[in-house]
Amino acid sequence: MDASGVQPTSRPGGRTARTRAAVRDATLAELAVHGYAGLTVEAVAARSGVHKTTVYRRWGGVDGLVVDALALADEDGWAPPDTGSFERDLRELAREVVVTFAGTPASAAFVAAAFQSERAAAALRDFYAERHRRSAAVVTRAVERGEVPAGTDAGAVVKAAVAPFYYRVLIAGEPATEDLADQSAAAVAHAARAGLYA
Amino acid sequence: MDASGVQPTSRPGGRTARTRAAVRDATLAELAVHGYAGLTVEAVAARSGVHKTTVYRRWGGVDGLVVDALALADEDGWAPPDTGSFERDLRELAREVVVTFAGTPASAAFVAAAFQSERAAAALRDFYAERHRRSAAVVTRAVERGEVPAGTDAGAVVKAAVAPFYYRVLIAGEPATEDLADQSAAAVAHAARAGLYA
Repeated sequence: MDASGVQPTSRPGGRTARTRAAVRDATLAELAVHGYAGLTVEAVAARSGVHKTTVYRRWGGVDGLVVDALALADEDGWAPPDTGSFERDLRELAREVVVTFAGTPASAAFVAAAFQSERAAAALRDFYAERHRRSAAVVTRAVERGEVPAGTDAGAVVKAAVAPFYYRVLIAGEPATEDLADQSAAAVAHAARAGLYA
Repeated sequence: MDASGVQPTSRPGGRTARTRAAVRDATLAELAVHGYAGLTVEAVAARSGVHKTTVYRRWGGVDGLVVDALALADEDGWAPPDTGSFERDLRELAREVVVTFAGTPASAAFVAAAFQSERAAAALRDFYAERHRRSAAVVTRAVERGEVPAGTDAGAVVKAAVAPFYYRVLIAGEPATEDLADQSAAAVAHAARAGLYA
C-alpha cells in the first residue's frame, strides 16, 4: 500500500471526503466493538456502505484504516480549553480524557493497534504529538497571565496531567474518573506554579 | 489449562523452582527480543532447556507463560526505596521505572500481551496492584515523618509519580529519562506536601 492509499485526496464536503468520513466512523465503531484484533476490512466495508474493493484499494488493509482514522482525528480542528484559568484549563483537558475513555473503547483499541503494527504506532505517536503541540497553548497563556513561570515546559505539564488516566485505565485496569481529573489538574497546576516543570 | 498448570508447586531451590525460574527467564528474554506477538512455547522451551511437552503440560501456552512470569515477579521480595526522605523515595521509585524501560523491552511486551489476552491483562493488573500496595509504604512513612498530611492517598501519589513514564514510552513514543524521574518526583512530592492527594 502506498501513501496515497492511506490519505486519499480529500475534497471537503465532496464524495471523497464523505467516503473517507464514513470509513473512519465505521473503523472507530468496529474498533470499539471488536478491538484491533477483531478489525476486518470486510466489516468496515459493510458498516460504512463502501465497497470492499474500494476500501482495499484506498486503505490497503486494517493498518491503513487505523492510520487514516488517526490522521482524520488530527484534522478535526480540536483546540484545548481556554477558560481563562490555568488550573481550570488543565481540569477540562483531563476531563476530556475521562470522556474519551468512558465513551470510546476505540481509544484503548488504538493503543492495542500500536503494539501490533509499527505503522499504527507511528500514527499514534503523530496524533499525540499534534495534541501535545496544540495543548501547549494552555501553558503559554498561563505564562502570559503570570500564573506559571516563563520557561515552563508545556509538554511536561500537559503529559503529567493526563498520564495518570492512561496508566490507570490501560495498565492498572482502574476507571478514569472526574475526581481523578480534578486531583491531577490541581496537583500539576500547583507544581507548575512553583516552577517545578521549568 | 488449569490453575495448577499456571502456578506449579514450588519447592524453593528444588528442581521445580529451578525449572520455573528457567522458563520465566526464557519467557522474559523471548518477550524482550520478539515481543508478545512473537512469543512461542517452542522458543521458550529451547532457550530454557525445558522440554516442550513439559512447558505445554505445566504452562499450557504463551498466555500461561506470561501469567506465570508476572506471578513470579510478584514473589521477588521487591520493596520500595526507604531513603528517609519522601521526595528521594519517589525519585528512586521513578528511576526504577526508567531502568525497567531502558533494560527490558519485556515491560512493553507485558502491556502488549495484556491487550491481546484477558488472562495476561488480569495478571498485569494483579502485578501492578501488588506493586502499588507495597509502594504505599513510601507515603505511610512520609506521613509518620510529618512530610505529608495524614489521609494522603498513597496509591494516587505513587501512580502520579510513575504514570508519565508509561504515557511517554507506550503512548507518545518518547524515552524515559532520569531527568523526567527527578521532575516527576519533585512535582508530585510538592503537590502531596500541599495536601493535594488527600
